[in-house]
Amino acid sequence: MAEAYDAIDVIRSKRDGEHLSDEKIDWVIDAYTRGVVAEEQMAALAMAIFLNGMERREIARWTSAMIASGERMDFAALSKPTTDKHSTGGVGDKITLPLAPLVASFGVAVPQLSGRGLGHTGGTLDKLESIPGWRADLSNAEMMSQLEDVGAVVCAAGSGLAPADKKLYALRDVTGTVEAIPLIASSIMSKKIAEGTAALVLDVKTGAGAFMREEADARELARTMVDLGTDAGVTTVALLTDMSTPLGRTVGNALEVRESVEVLAGGGPADIVELTTALAREMLAAAGKKDVDVEAALADGRAMDTWKEMIRAQGGDPDAPLPIAAHTQEIRAEADGVVTALDALQVGVAGWRLGAGRSRPGEAVQAGAGVELHRVVGETVHAGDVLATLHTDTPDRFERAVESIDGAWTIRADAAERQRSIVLDRIA
Amino acid sequence: MAEAYDAIDVIRSKRDGEHLSDEKIDWVIDAYTRGVVAEEQMAALAMAIFLNGMERREIARWTSAMIASGERMDFAALSKPTTDKHSTGGVGDKITLPLAPLVASFGVAVPQLSGRGLGHTGGTLDKLESIPGWRADLSNAEMMSQLEDVGAVVCAAGSGLAPADKKLYALRDVTGTVEAIPLIASSIMSKKIAEGTAALVLDVKTGAGAFMREEADARELARTMVDLGTDAGVTTVALLTDMSTPLGRTVGNALEVRESVEVLAGGGPADIVELTTALAREMLAAAGKKDVDVEAALADGRAMDTWKEMIRAQGGDPDAPLPIAAHTQEIRAEADGVVTALDALQVGVAGWRLGAGRSRPGEAVQAGAGVELHRVVGETVHAGDVLATLHTDTPDRFERAVESIDGAWTIRADAAERQRSIVLDRIA
Repeated sequence: MAEAYDAIDVIRSKRDGEHLSDEKIDWVIDAYTRGVVAEEQMAALAMAIFLNGMERREIARWTSAMIASGERMDFAALSKPTTDKHSTGGVGDKITLPLAPLVASFGVAVPQLSGRGLGHTGGTLDKLESIPGWRADLSNAEMMSQLEDVGAVVCAAGSGLAPADKKLYALRDVTGTVEAIPLIASSIMSKKIAEGTAALVLDVKTGAGAFMREEADARELARTMVDLGTDAGVTTVALLTDMSTPLGRTVGNALEVRESVEVLAGGGPADIVELTTALAREMLAAAGKKDVDVEAALADGRAMDTWKEMIRAQGGDPDAPLPIAAHTQEIRAEADGVVTALDALQVGVAGWRLGAGRSRPGEAVQAGAGVELHRVVGETVHAGDVLATLHTDTPDRFERAVESIDGAWTIRADAAERQRSIVLDRIA
Repeated sequence: MAEAYDAIDVIRSKRDGEHLSDEKIDWVIDAYTRGVVAEEQMAALAMAIFLNGMERREIARWTSAMIASGERMDFAALSKPTTDKHSTGGVGDKITLPLAPLVASFGVAVPQLSGRGLGHTGGTLDKLESIPGWRADLSNAEMMSQLEDVGAVVCAAGSGLAPADKKLYALRDVTGTVEAIPLIASSIMSKKIAEGTAALVLDVKTGAGAFMREEADARELARTMVDLGTDAGVTTVALLTDMSTPLGRTVGNALEVRESVEVLAGGGPADIVELTTALAREMLAAAGKKDVDVEAALADGRAMDTWKEMIRAQGGDPDAPLPIAAHTQEIRAEADGVVTALDALQVGVAGWRLGAGRSRPGEAVQAGAGVELHRVVGETVHAGDVLATLHTDTPDRFERAVESIDGAWTIRADAAERQRSIVLDRIA
């Protein structure tokens, strides 16, 4: 069968700074999925896109073409509205855990198709898998019935959604073309739009522990994704949030579940509560429920009830004790003062080296491993205080974890205590 | 074995506009040759080089690394100096045929490692293969002995020279990264430097029938290659020459041999004689022979004697009749005037469609096929004059050849006859 276009012509167009026509974009994504456009050709095109960019129309069409490469889900059969959240990922980001049941407790369906972690940022599924019995793999029918009955589902994304994105993501990973905003935005949004949600809230992080370290880049990514969602008929809002320092006081799988349960019980660290409630308000508003009292649902146990139902529906025991690592080691302060900074990347890498994360897909993670933070940004410290406890089942990992976390705290004698502010901006 | 660098880091450096260190360049070329750097990674790097460029030092190192990927030839054992020529290719470019024996007739060794044609520009080996019995494949020992005895050799390049370039060239061809000046220059020069010549003259063409249509690009390519040769210790000079219109009056394999023999017999078209003698003077000067009378060697038969020796040494019969195509068709003028332009690309494509060239490597070519030009730039034409004769063994090819050549002549009633000037500039 004759092909409508030639891969070299498409590459040359973008290389020479032209805009790709809708027809060329549709063809190149489809032909790449079919294997007619070779990996090396897509690599050259991805680099040309990286360096020459894509305009709003091109990104929207690229996203639609990736959606069209696979199946689409449809939540229209549910009796309630759906609302979804996506985070660009960060250190200690366990927000999905309290957020999904909190939002679902208001009668909204929250399908959270999540992934496993790679590198220093943890995966939501890895965290939940530290709960005895809990399983991530649900059939579409199981997911639909849980959305109807419980409202909240966190499960593994099926392989049928946007297969072109799956292939392209693996290619970008080895060709130095990951950090292109048009490609990141279309990758995230193709999956989210294919999931079929009516409303979407994006948590776009910036700072040392984030994928987008620079705020200007994070802002551009947020704006691009909001435009893509809006153009596709999905009510989309983004919050720009701070990832210069870890979220909450724990980094690690079971450690983060424990902290999430504290939030669901009406307690927990202030930054987690702030971000969880801010995102919950946005998700509910996007689903048509405005001016609801989300704090009350945390305080009165409604969110906790939905959490327990959600865990049980996926085979987990929400009341079973969580795994604890066999070995711990403490990090102590050397001076008096106030913590003015706590580097998210250093803490994230320490947790990863302790066994909470993986280096390559498929590797096992330790449920109990991670970092417990006893002093965080804005708090007073005295020399000799325990700053953090490191957890692992394999004590030979302590040395390299300490190397990473060493110097993560900036402590100044002349600074004042302060409350951290986490939501930097809202982009709608 | 642990690798010294990571392909992704090298790609990112160039992507982000940095200069690649010598060590990174050495590693990436070597690792690509070994298959450790994957095709898709080199494709992304080639596109980053295309768009972000390389500085002089990087191009020189890239060239050295490609040379180091294979064997180098050494002509030091010869009793005479060596001098080499490279042309970037054009329509009707048979210059190597009269040039190599002409220069060799002055006691200089001229090793011309050549290729076969692809697309609308013909290959020197294809042309010589129209001579009954002539063979292109020589062993290194045969080549050395012919250089010593005859002085001139035109043969196929061995596969051992710059294998990294061979691999990279095939990749660039399918990834839209051919036209990058650093990559073109390093590709040509890696092979020429690996060939071991002491002196090199470059014929860099510009105009409709050339690879570099724009003069500014051709000039930059020439400058880059002269710098590369000079940095590698090879005496290098470039002539910038016109390829807006075909060279001489023939395009096609046996047709071009016939015209070359006319030049060697002291006749032939003025433009071919001008370019051949200009290049010969440069090659001889670069080999230390200045102020020689090259025109005399064409007029008195010395160049022709060397030509015959060269053809015989490679199994050919220089006195055998050349193949003639079975069918011809004429193109006639529709108006009176002077030819002010004759489009090289249109004529080249016509010759290719008649069977003189190939569409993919390995395809056979017709020895007799091609275009004979009866009226060229600067000449007077009357309505009804034969402008060209098309030759082919397969008459169903006439239609598409006529389509291509139709309109190739621009004829103006008010223009004056003029002599074509071919050498536009000299870059040393």
